[in-house]
Amino acid sequence: MSYRDELAHVLPEGRVFDEPDVVAAYSRDQAAWAPVGRAAVLVRPATPEEVRQVVRICAEHRVPVVARGAGTGLSGGANAVDGCVVLALEGMDAILEIDPAEQLAVVQPGVVNDRLRAAVAEHGLWYPPDPASSPWSTIGGNAATNAGGVCCVKYGVTRDYVLGLQIVTGKGELVRVGRRTRKGVAGYDLTAMFVGSEGTLGVITEITVRLLPRRSAQRTVVGAFDDLETAGRAVARTAESHLTPAALELVDRYCLRAVDDWKNMGLSDMGNVLLLGRTDTPGDEEARALQEAFDAAGATWSTRSTDAEEAEALFAARRLAYPALERLGPVLTEDVCVPRGLVPEMLVRIERHAKEHGVHIANIAHAGDGNLHPLIIVPAGDEAARTRAERAFDAILDDAIALGGTVTGEHGVGLLKKRGMRDELGEDVLALHRDVKRALDPYGILNPGKVI
Amino acid sequence: MSYRDELAHVLPEGRVFDEPDVVAAYSRDQAAWAPVGRAAVLVRPATPEEVRQVVRICAEHRVPVVARGAGTGLSGGANAVDGCVVLALEGMDAILEIDPAEQLAVVQPGVVNDRLRAAVAEHGLWYPPDPASSPWSTIGGNAATNAGGVCCVKYGVTRDYVLGLQIVTGKGELVRVGRRTRKGVAGYDLTAMFVGSEGTLGVITEITVRLLPRRSAQRTVVGAFDDLETAGRAVARTAESHLTPAALELVDRYCLRAVDDWKNMGLSDMGNVLLLGRTDTPGDEEARALQEAFDAAGATWSTRSTDAEEAEALFAARRLAYPALERLGPVLTEDVCVPRGLVPEMLVRIERHAKEHGVHIANIAHAGDGNLHPLIIVPAGDEAARTRAERAFDAILDDAIALGGTVTGEHGVGLLKKRGMRDELGEDVLALHRDVKRALDPYGILNPGKVI
Repeated sequence: MSYRDELAHVLPEGRVFDEPDVVAAYSRDQAAWAPVGRAAVLVRPATPEEVRQVVRICAEHRVPVVARGAGTGLSGGANAVDGCVVLALEGMDAILEIDPAEQLAVVQPGVVNDRLRAAVAEHGLWYPPDPASSPWSTIGGNAATNAGGVCCVKYGVTRDYVLGLQIVTGKGELVRVGRRTRKGVAGYDLTAMFVGSEGTLGVITEITVRLLPRRSAQRTVVGAFDDLETAGRAVARTAESHLTPAALELVDRYCLRAVDDWKNMGLSDMGNVLLLGRTDTPGDEEARALQEAFDAAGATWSTRSTDAEEAEALFAARRLAYPALERLGPVLTEDVCVPRGLVPEMLVRIERHAKEHGVHIANIAHAGDGNLHPLIIVPAGDEAARTRAERAFDAILDDAIALGGTVTGEHGVGLLKKRGMRDELGEDVLALHRDVKRALDPYGILNPGKVI
Repeated sequence: MSYRDELAHVLPEGRVFDEPDVVAAYSRDQAAWAPVGRAAVLVRPATPEEVRQVVRICAEHRVPVVARGAGTGLSGGANAVDGCVVLALEGMDAILEIDPAEQLAVVQPGVVNDRLRAAVAEHGLWYPPDPASSPWSTIGGNAATNAGGVCCVKYGVTRDYVLGLQIVTGKGELVRVGRRTRKGVAGYDLTAMFVGSEGTLGVITEITVRLLPRRSAQRTVVGAFDDLETAGRAVARTAESHLTPAALELVDRYCLRAVDDWKNMGLSDMGNVLLLGRTDTPGDEEARALQEAFDAAGATWSTRSTDAEEAEALFAARRLAYPALERLGPVLTEDVCVPRGLVPEMLVRIERHAKEHGVHIANIAHAGDGNLHPLIIVPAGDEAARTRAERAFDAILDDAIALGGTVTGEHGVGLLKKRGMRDELGEDVLALHRDVKRALDPYGILNPGKVI
């Protein structure tokens, strides 16, 4: 029996699709510049057991499996490869359990991040990881890419909140790794390794996440700066002062204008570069210290406030920056992360690359943890500009490595960062990756060609 | 050339020892009940390159390598196996770098935990993981076992603070995994997997740890309870109230008396079971809420204070409990971790097992995260009591698993928890462990027979 027939035979009706337009619609994520293969079949399973069956059949027939959530990734990690089965997990979207006393939740991979956050908030709890895609992206996708977000600077990334996983291995076995307790050292931390492995080591069918109590009221601190370097110096100064803001975001004039042009928010009048800070330690002390750091670094003006609505508007502008820029043309998204003290230097280098390569680069950044998102924008259809943009992209990756940073802080390797990751890790560590990949996916069917 | 000759040939003088009494002195950790093999050679390397040479030679000759730090482990993980080379890393004890702005430190594996804490405190920084062994245990050993401690309930365990490692693999290659930046998703999280792998996947030669700013002043909350179950209910109530104390320790009357008999601190007059809480969120609110939780659960008395000296004395008593009990006879140390709401149930079951098996069980616990340390004490030389103790030990592990917990919260699997871990993880997940072990240690020379 062919694998298609076997899939149709084993799965309930309505799970397997091979109409080309339907399959194509599930064949790519939001990395506009990453190559996309031609998938053979789309499967939309409803249970972990169905996922197991799909992977088992694919393992037997050596057919590639590309798992995906909402497809909001920015590195091409969920892009189809030729002849693959796309495994769309968005339909498995049940919140299976919220345990307020243990401060944990158990969810299926298709649960949307914001939906989980809203559900646990009803119990006075908080799921911190907050990628900008949180209204659409799924916890399964967040776990597969180890998604970050705005609050990481104080609260860490997705991996820090995944206690346990149910996964289907490359051999088609359904297993549970991790735990439900607060601590545990029984065996290797396979959970941490599956998180962020972008579907190359296993397919996630259930996630147990740790929650925090609802946090205290927040204060917002805004600083405006004449240029990127000065704003970068404020970031470095914040780090040197041992402040731990709950958010420290950078938005430059390109982004502010793009948001204004779209939503008419009047943001670009505020300054060339804004730093948006947030604190949530009780009292005003931390916010005041943050404002002082901004001022000492040379802010043209600064303010702090406890007004939640005003804060929401400012952070909404930050979230809107990416879609606002996408309206202007294809965006090549960087995701480098450098030591925080080197944020000003990296911003200067990014500006230099924009000039040298003749491309527009807008900047948003999770500046507080050194995670910069230079956004390279070219006019649609301009092939020469596209080539220049790719050169600028590579030059920025090289600089991040040269400064002791990484080519991807939170978006993942996917297809776009494979060259950069090779340069960053070196051949010896890549060999370890291949050893691990071979051990857990011996037939090489899980998202082949991604990451390694 | 024999591997001994090769070691002597390749390493500088004074590194290789084979006098039986010297080798024996480095052949066991503090797990009094775990079996110990007869090591062939002790090597005390001074550099990562020397470690690499040792592992390379051992890989070539298929000789087992057992790495160790200070030997304060409680599961037999560092115990010699027959014919092995013991690799003692305590001499590699340089603090290589403290970077205050990036809030990280780079240390060799032999650096003692308290020494690192003192060194970073001079820069206004804090290394949170604080196992009770912190005056003696090394960061290398802490990383190898993913050590916990008192502050984990709020601040997490060693793995949460290890950013990167330099390790020697089972093939004798010296590689760097992880990063220096706050975030990073380039490749698999091999760092997290090496942490807690107890020397079975690689030998740690350097550790990059994340630091936090010095924390705010702390408040201490003490509650006394008539019995373990009531104290356990206070723990569950704390969890249900979504409080996040910075420490929540339990000490029972056996431990209090043992400390009194040794240090004459007058602790056992305070109550049958004490809960020692600590808060470090600015303001009194959290401490008051914690005290209210104690009272509501049925504390016979409670108090809260900002007196740092008084607090230090109480937590010192907690740390002294284990050595105080060791004075009374061989101690079989449990390390189960259960969901926090089930702490009272688990404590009741532990008492029942003590009665049923006719053994003394004292209790200390990192109660706030459900991590219990029942300490089974038998008279030295009483073989029948020892057999009864082993039965009680097994029964407690079984109960922890039955309650959805783990057989080891922080001490590691070593030799003592191998059976328990097998039962906890199941054959399918163990098979994944073996796949990973084979991939990273293809000759099976790294601490063989431990963990898996």
